Amino acid sequence: MERTPEQQAQIEMAKRLKKKEVVDKKIAAATEERGVSILLTGNGKGKSSSAFGTMARALGHGHKATVVQFIKGRKETGEQLFFGQHPQVSFHVMGHGFTWETRDPELEQQAAHQAWEVAKQALADENVDFVLLDEITYMYKYGYLDVADLVAALAQRPAHQNVMMTGRTAPRELLDSVDTHSKIANERHAFEGGVKAQPGIEW
Amino acid sequence: MERTPEQQAQIEMAKRLKKKEVVDKKIAAATEERGVSILLTGNGKGKSSSAFGTMARALGHGHKATVVQFIKGRKETGEQLFFGQHPQVSFHVMGHGFTWETRDPELEQQAAHQAWEVAKQALADENVDFVLLDEITYMYKYGYLDVADLVAALAQRPAHQNVMMTGRTAPRELLDSVDTHSKIANERHAFEGGVKAQPGIEW
Repeated sequence: MERTPEQQAQIEMAKRLKKKEVVDKKIAAATEERGVSILLTGNGKGKSSSAFGTMARALGHGHKATVVQFIKGRKETGEQLFFGQHPQVSFHVMGHGFTWETRDPELEQQAAHQAWEVAKQALADENVDFVLLDEITYMYKYGYLDVADLVAALAQRPAHQNVMMTGRTAPRELLDSVDTHSKIANERHAFEGGVKAQPGIEW
Repeated sequence: MERTPEQQAQIEMAKRLKKKEVVDKKIAAATEERGVSILLTGNGKGKSSSAFGTMARALGHGHKATVVQFIKGRKETGEQLFFGQHPQVSFHVMGHGFTWETRDPELEQQAAHQAWEVAKQALADENVDFVLLDEITYMYKYGYLDVADLVAALAQRPAHQNVMMTGRTAPRELLDSVDTHSKIANERHAFEGGVKAQPGIEW
């Protein structure tokens, strides 16, 4: 028996109200007020953009943010053009050394350590409400930084501070320590269909 | 035999260079220049924020954007506070009717249709470079809109226009039609650990 759109809408509404009851109970149980650490991993498109979108949301509420990008792109990125001069944002791109193009582990390690110093300061700063550590997990994969330092800095940071971290994979110690972890899977990518990477989407 | 950090870095560097060769070949093969349609689904945190972050990136490159939010939150969102008055952005939140709180399918359907009219215009507008249809897929789940209309509008849109759509699940017709699809899985959420939802993160 086929349902009319009205019947379908009523059935979905009933489901929603039932679900809402369950969610409302969970909301009532979640009462701890503090900043959270969020990690985005996976091979799908959307990790860095999600972190920047959350930062925009935080800025909309008047928060102050520090960004550290651990990998420098070849081109000027839209996110740096957009947020780089914003008065609530302190924006840092690893100054030299580490790009997808370089081949010098020593220079890269030096650049990783410099970027980490900036990140560490932000994670200790009461005046910073939101910290974005973009593509930081590669630094652990490549052995340039010690994840124990990050886990310790996260644990000791100001209680209200929110932190977002991105990267394709992450070490177990980090996965175990964060409050929220989303994993973004690539189901399909335009690139695989022959569409060229472009400003405003890929960078 | 344990590796020194230097040895580890060299091994990772060799892997990266090998991977880079493969990626470079794919980049050379991806030559079609056109706008893409991107869909973000899944139960994990990060779908809407990823769409807004990509929009920030597009704005950084001077693009013009239209946002239609198909579900109205109870509170003023950070994304609307941040992007709502931006000169390159036309920002629309479904005016009335559909929130997570309402219980009137008729009002909701009316609101859904009004929002779709705005979206349809944007998808036909040469001057709009980036269209964000936030939480649109719920409209198909609830039977308020016809996904065939969206698929047709996507197919007929200006060739350079990029479109991002979000929602927990999506109908097969939409999944089949988009260029890029990422699925965000919830691995862990602070909420489940008792941490209260907060401005700058959840809205």
